Amino acid sequence: MTLHTADAVRHDVDGLMRDYYEAETLRADELDAAYGKLWRTMSGLAFAGGKRLRPYLLVLAYEVYGGDDYRSVLPVAAAQELLHQSLLIHDDITDKDIVRYGVANVTGTYDEVYGQRCVPASDVRHYAESAALLAGDLLLSGAHAMIQSSGLPAHQIAVAQASLSRAVFEVAAGQLLDMEAGMQEMRLTDPYKIAQLKTASYSFNAPMECGAGLAGAPAEDIRQLVRLGSRLGEAYQLADDLLGVFGDESVTGKSNLTDLQEGKHTYLMQLTFRMSTPQQLSAVREYFGRHDLDHGQADRIKEIIVACGARDGVEQRLEEYRQETARMMEGLSISHEARTRLRDLAAGVTRRIR
Amino acid sequence: MTLHTADAVRHDVDGLMRDYYEAETLRADELDAAYGKLWRTMSGLAFAGGKRLRPYLLVLAYEVYGGDDYRSVLPVAAAQELLHQSLLIHDDITDKDIVRYGVANVTGTYDEVYGQRCVPASDVRHYAESAALLAGDLLLSGAHAMIQSSGLPAHQIAVAQASLSRAVFEVAAGQLLDMEAGMQEMRLTDPYKIAQLKTASYSFNAPMECGAGLAGAPAEDIRQLVRLGSRLGEAYQLADDLLGVFGDESVTGKSNLTDLQEGKHTYLMQLTFRMSTPQQLSAVREYFGRHDLDHGQADRIKEIIVACGARDGVEQRLEEYRQETARMMEGLSISHEARTRLRDLAAGVTRRIR
Repeated sequence: MTLHTADAVRHDVDGLMRDYYEAETLRADELDAAYGKLWRTMSGLAFAGGKRLRPYLLVLAYEVYGGDDYRSVLPVAAAQELLHQSLLIHDDITDKDIVRYGVANVTGTYDEVYGQRCVPASDVRHYAESAALLAGDLLLSGAHAMIQSSGLPAHQIAVAQASLSRAVFEVAAGQLLDMEAGMQEMRLTDPYKIAQLKTASYSFNAPMECGAGLAGAPAEDIRQLVRLGSRLGEAYQLADDLLGVFGDESVTGKSNLTDLQEGKHTYLMQLTFRMSTPQQLSAVREYFGRHDLDHGQADRIKEIIVACGARDGVEQRLEEYRQETARMMEGLSISHEARTRLRDLAAGVTRRIR
Repeated sequence: MTLHTADAVRHDVDGLMRDYYEAETLRADELDAAYGKLWRTMSGLAFAGGKRLRPYLLVLAYEVYGGDDYRSVLPVAAAQELLHQSLLIHDDITDKDIVRYGVANVTGTYDEVYGQRCVPASDVRHYAESAALLAGDLLLSGAHAMIQSSGLPAHQIAVAQASLSRAVFEVAAGQLLDMEAGMQEMRLTDPYKIAQLKTASYSFNAPMECGAGLAGAPAEDIRQLVRLGSRLGEAYQLADDLLGVFGDESVTGKSNLTDLQEGKHTYLMQLTFRMSTPQQLSAVREYFGRHDLDHGQADRIKEIIVACGARDGVEQRLEEYRQETARMMEGLSISHEARTRLRDLAAGVTRRIR
C-alpha cells in the first residue's frame, strides 16, 4: 500500500475543514449576522496558513500500521487541526499576539472592528480577546464534534476522543508551566518538560498514538511510536524557539520580537544565560523581557546569543535529536517506505525553515 | 416510577463530580504541582456553589419520558454541569469578575497568587485570566470526555455529544451578542434573543432535549419540551437580571454593581430606558455603564428603575411566563407527578430568590 503524501492529506483535510467552516458559518448566520462574522473570521484564519502537520502525522501513523481506510479517518485527522487552531487562538490571547500567519488573528480582527464602535478605547482589546476566547471554545468543542460525527465505529470514536481529551489535558499543563516559567528564575525552568507538555503532547504524541490506535496497532508499537513522537516534539519546540528569535518574519508570519519581549524561558535563552560572559549576561538581562524592546535591542541580544555559542548549542542539540530519532525508527517494525517517510519528517522538524 | 428529586440528583452528581475532580487533580499532580494547584482551584470553585439545575433538568426530562436507568445517565447529567462551570469561568473573564459564589473565582485566585510573584503589576490580571482561560478549556473538553466515558451505548453517546455541541454553538452566539449589545444603542438590543441563545440554549433546552432523547422520547415530544425549555430559559434570564441589580450580594454571591457598571443591556434596563421620564432618563444615562459607579449612584438608578415601573414590568412579564409555561405543560403527554415537578420548577425559575 502506498502511503498518502503530506500534500494529499493537506488537500483532503482542507476540503473537509472547508465544508465544516462553511456549514458552521451558515448555521451561525441563521442565528445572527454578527455571529456569522465571527465564524468567517475564524475560517479566514484557518486557511491563512498552517502546514496541517498534525493531520498528516495521524494519517501516517494510521497507514504505517496497516490502516487501509484513509477516508474514514480523515475527520479525526481534521479534528487534530481544529484543536490546533483552537489552541493557537487561545495561546495568542495569553501571549497578547494579534498577528498569526502574517494576518490579523481573531483578536487582531476584532480589535479593529470594536475600535470603530462606541467602546471605551481601554476596553477594545479586552472585548476583542473575549471574541477570540469564544472562537477557541467553539473549535475545541468542534474538534470533539468532528470525531463524534465521523461515522467511525464506536470503538474507534472512543480511541480518538480519549486521545483528544488527553492531549487537551497535557497541553493545558504545558501552557500553564510555560506562563509561570516567566515568573521565576531562568535556571528553575525545565524547557524540555514544557516542550513535552505544551508541544509534543498534542502535536506529535496524540496524532501518532491516535492514528496507530485507529489502525489497531499493538500497544507496545504504540508506546514506541509515542516515545518517538515525544522526541520529535521536543526537537520541534527547540527549532520553533530558534525561529521565534532568528526567523524571518515574512516567512514565519509572526513577530520575532515577542519571545524576547515576553522574556520567554526557552532552551535557547537558558543556554544563553548559562554560556554568556558576565558582561554579555548583564546586557541580555537589561533588555530581555522588556515589553518595549525594539529591533535594535533585539539585535544586540541576538548577537550575544550567537557569540556565546547558545545558538550553536541548540543546533547541536537538534542534530542529536536527528540521530536519536533515526535510531528509534530503526527499532520500529514498519515497512521501508514508512521508515523513509518518518525520517523525512524528522529531518523537516529538526531543520525546518518556517 | 418515582422521579428523583432535585436533592437526590444534586447529591449523586456531586459525587460523580467529586470523583472526576479528584482523579484529574491526581493526574495533574503527576505532571506538575503547579498544574495540580490549578485543578484544586477549579475543584474548590465547583463545590463553592451552584444548584445543579442542569443535571436535574436532564434527569427529570429523562425520567418523565420513561427513562428507567438513572445511574447510566448521571455522567451525562454531570457533563451539563461541567459545561456550565466552563462557561462561568470564561464568562467571568469577559465580565472582568473575580468573585463567584462569594469566593474568589479562578481569575481571583490567581490574581492573588501571581501578585506575590515576580510579575509586573500591570500583567498580573492578564496572567490570572490566562489561567482561567485554561481552566475553562479543560472543563469544556472534560464535559465531552465525561459523556464519552459514560459507558452508555453508542447511540446514546451520540445523542448526548450532539446536544452538548449544539449548546456550545448557541451559547457562544449568545455571549457574542450580549457583549456586542453594549456597543450599540439600547433600543437595538433584543434581550429575548440573547436570553434564548445565552441562557435557555444550554441551561434548559439542551439538558431537557438530551434527557428526553436519552429516554427515547418521540421527536414531537422533544420539540414540545424544548419549546417549554426556551420559555423557562427566557424567564430565568429575566429573573437573573433582576437579581443582578436588586439581589442580596450575600445570597447571590456576586456583586450587584457589575451589571450597572458594565452597562448591560437587559430587558429590565430596556424597560427603564423606555418608561422613565426625560429627567429620570438623563439621570440613568449619567451613571449607567460607568466603571467607577459606586453604591450611592447604583441606589439612585435602582430608585428610578422602581419609580418608572420597569421593575414591576419585569415582574409582570415573569407572571406571564408562569402562566404561559403552565399552559404548555398541560399540553405535554406526561404523568401527573411529572407535571407537578415541572410546575414546581417553573415556579422556582420565575420567582427564585437566589
